[in-house]
Amino acid sequence: MKILSFKSNGEVKFGPKVKKEEAVWDVLAIQKELKVLPSFPSEIINGIALGFDFVEQIRKLVEAAIKSDQVEQFKSSFTEIEWLSPIPRTPKNILCIGKNYDEHAKEMGSKAAPKDLLVFTKSPTSIAADEQVLPIHGNKTNSLDYEGELAVVIGKHGKDIPKNLAFDYVFGYTIANDITARDLQDRHKQYFLGKSLDGTCPLGPYIVTKDEIADPQKLTVVTKVNGEVRQNGSTKDMMFTVEELISILSQYVTLEPGDVILTGTPAGVGKGMTPPTFLKAGDEVKVSIEGIGTLSNRFE
Amino acid sequence: MKILSFKSNGEVKFGPKVKKEEAVWDVLAIQKELKVLPSFPSEIINGIALGFDFVEQIRKLVEAAIKSDQVEQFKSSFTEIEWLSPIPRTPKNILCIGKNYDEHAKEMGSKAAPKDLLVFTKSPTSIAADEQVLPIHGNKTNSLDYEGELAVVIGKHGKDIPKNLAFDYVFGYTIANDITARDLQDRHKQYFLGKSLDGTCPLGPYIVTKDEIADPQKLTVVTKVNGEVRQNGSTKDMMFTVEELISILSQYVTLEPGDVILTGTPAGVGKGMTPPTFLKAGDEVKVSIEGIGTLSNRFE
Repeated sequence: MKILSFKSNGEVKFGPKVKKEEAVWDVLAIQKELKVLPSFPSEIINGIALGFDFVEQIRKLVEAAIKSDQVEQFKSSFTEIEWLSPIPRTPKNILCIGKNYDEHAKEMGSKAAPKDLLVFTKSPTSIAADEQVLPIHGNKTNSLDYEGELAVVIGKHGKDIPKNLAFDYVFGYTIANDITARDLQDRHKQYFLGKSLDGTCPLGPYIVTKDEIADPQKLTVVTKVNGEVRQNGSTKDMMFTVEELISILSQYVTLEPGDVILTGTPAGVGKGMTPPTFLKAGDEVKVSIEGIGTLSNRFE
Repeated sequence: MKILSFKSNGEVKFGPKVKKEEAVWDVLAIQKELKVLPSFPSEIINGIALGFDFVEQIRKLVEAAIKSDQVEQFKSSFTEIEWLSPIPRTPKNILCIGKNYDEHAKEMGSKAAPKDLLVFTKSPTSIAADEQVLPIHGNKTNSLDYEGELAVVIGKHGKDIPKNLAFDYVFGYTIANDITARDLQDRHKQYFLGKSLDGTCPLGPYIVTKDEIADPQKLTVVTKVNGEVRQNGSTKDMMFTVEELISILSQYVTLEPGDVILTGTPAGVGKGMTPPTFLKAGDEVKVSIEGIGTLSNRFE
C-alpha cells in the first residue's frame, strides 16, 4: 500500500493512493460518513503506531467506500490536493546516517567509510513535501547540495532490537533528499546546523508499506538534477544494512513510531564533482527509488 | 514563577510552586472545578506557546483557588506527586551547545573554544526528571559523565531572530545535566549517539520564568558528585551568550515553543580530571544554579 499525507480544504489528511488512478482515498471522510470502524486514528502517526492493523483498517475503509453509492466523493484527485510529507512531523529529529556508502565516503575526502556508525540529525522543521518549491537559502550558504536516500519509517517503539527482529519495527519506506549546506556543515563540525535549514528534508511522495518491498538492499537510487543523472547507486552497497542500522541505532536511542531513518547517500553528490557543483535557483532535483517512486523538488 | 510538571493519579499535570510551601498548585483542577477562564491549555507546551499570557492565566487560577473554600484541595504536596521534567517532551531534539566555556574546551583537549558554534542534539527520549534514578548503562559505556548546564526554554516560534530581540523568545530557564557517554561520543565522531541514551537528559526541577532571572549571564553553576564540588562556574564565562545562541541558532533552525537549548557546560567534568573519573552506580549528581534550584539524580 502507498500511503500519502495531504491537505484538503485546510485540513491535514492521509490515505492510500487509489490503484491505477492519480487520486487518494480520503479515509478520514469514509470513516466519518460510513462509520465503518469502532475507531480510527485522525493522525497518521497514531496510525503507524498500530502497525499492520492500520493497513488492515485502511483496507476495510476503502472496501466500504467502493461498496457505497458515494464512491467518487471519497476520492481526491491529485490535482486538487496539496501534498504533504507522508509523515508531516516526526516525533524526534530525523535520524541520519553519514557515509554509509564507501564510494560516497571517498568522494567526501575520507579514505573509506567509517567503521563505526556516523549518526547526525535533522530538525523536523526541515521536513518538506514532494513537489514543494524549496528555498535555495542564498543568503546563508553558497553550497547547497542534494543527497538522494532510502528512508525507513519506524512502526514500533523499541530499544536494543536484535538484528533478526529489526524488520518487525519497520512500517515502510519512503524517499528522502538530505539537502545539505556544505559550507555550514564544514564550518560547524557537528553536522546538525548545516543539515537543518527549513525545507532541506523533503520526504515522499508516499510511504510504501514494507510488504511491497521484497528486499530493501536491492533498490536502485537515482538522483537527477535538471534531468542529468548525478547519483546512480544501489542499496546493496550500504556499509550498514537497514537491519543493522535499526539494531545499532536502537542500542543508543529509543525508536518510536513515525521515526524516520535516512540510510545514507550513494556517490555522486555535487561536492564530489570536478569542480564541485552546487544547487542554484531554478534547479530541479528528482530522486527515484524503484518500487517507491520519485521525489521532485525545484529550488528558488 | 516556578512551574513544574508532575504526575498525580496517573495524569500528567503542571502548575506553579506554592509560595513558601513544598507543594504545587493543581491549576488544571482549579480550572476544571471553578471554571475561572474561558479556556486553558491542558498541556504545558501549549501554555508555553501563549508566552506571558500563560503566566497571567496561571496567576488568575491561583487567585481564584485562594479565594475559594477548597483552597487546600487544589494543592498537591511534593511528597504525593511524581516529578516530571518541567517539559516532559520537547517538540524536537534538545539543542545543545558544545564547548561554550573556554576552560571546558581546554579540559576536553581543544586548544580553545571553537570560533563557530558547535551544535549537536539529544533525543527527547533521553529526557528525565529531577530526583529520577537514572541508568548507569554499564553494558553500553564505561565512561558516563555529567555536564551541569543552564537550559533555556523557548516560548515563541521564530527564525532569523536579531540578537536584540532574542529575550522576547525566551519563556524561562531550567537546569540540565547533559549526561554523556564519553567513549561513544569519541567512537562515533558525531555526538548524537553518545548523548542520547535513555535518561541522559534530566531537566528541572522547575522552569523559572524569565522575569525572575535578572541576567542569565550572571549565574553560578555548581555541580557536585556525592557532595564533592566538581564544577563551579559562572554563565558570565560563556563564549556565546544566551542572546547570541538564540540569534545564531535561529539562523539555521526554526525555533518553536518548548524547545530547550542547553547552553554548554563549564570546566570540571569527569573526563577532565586526573585521572579521568566517570560516574558509577550509587553516585548522586546535583547541579545547582542560583535563582533556579538544584537538579538531583542518583545512578543505578
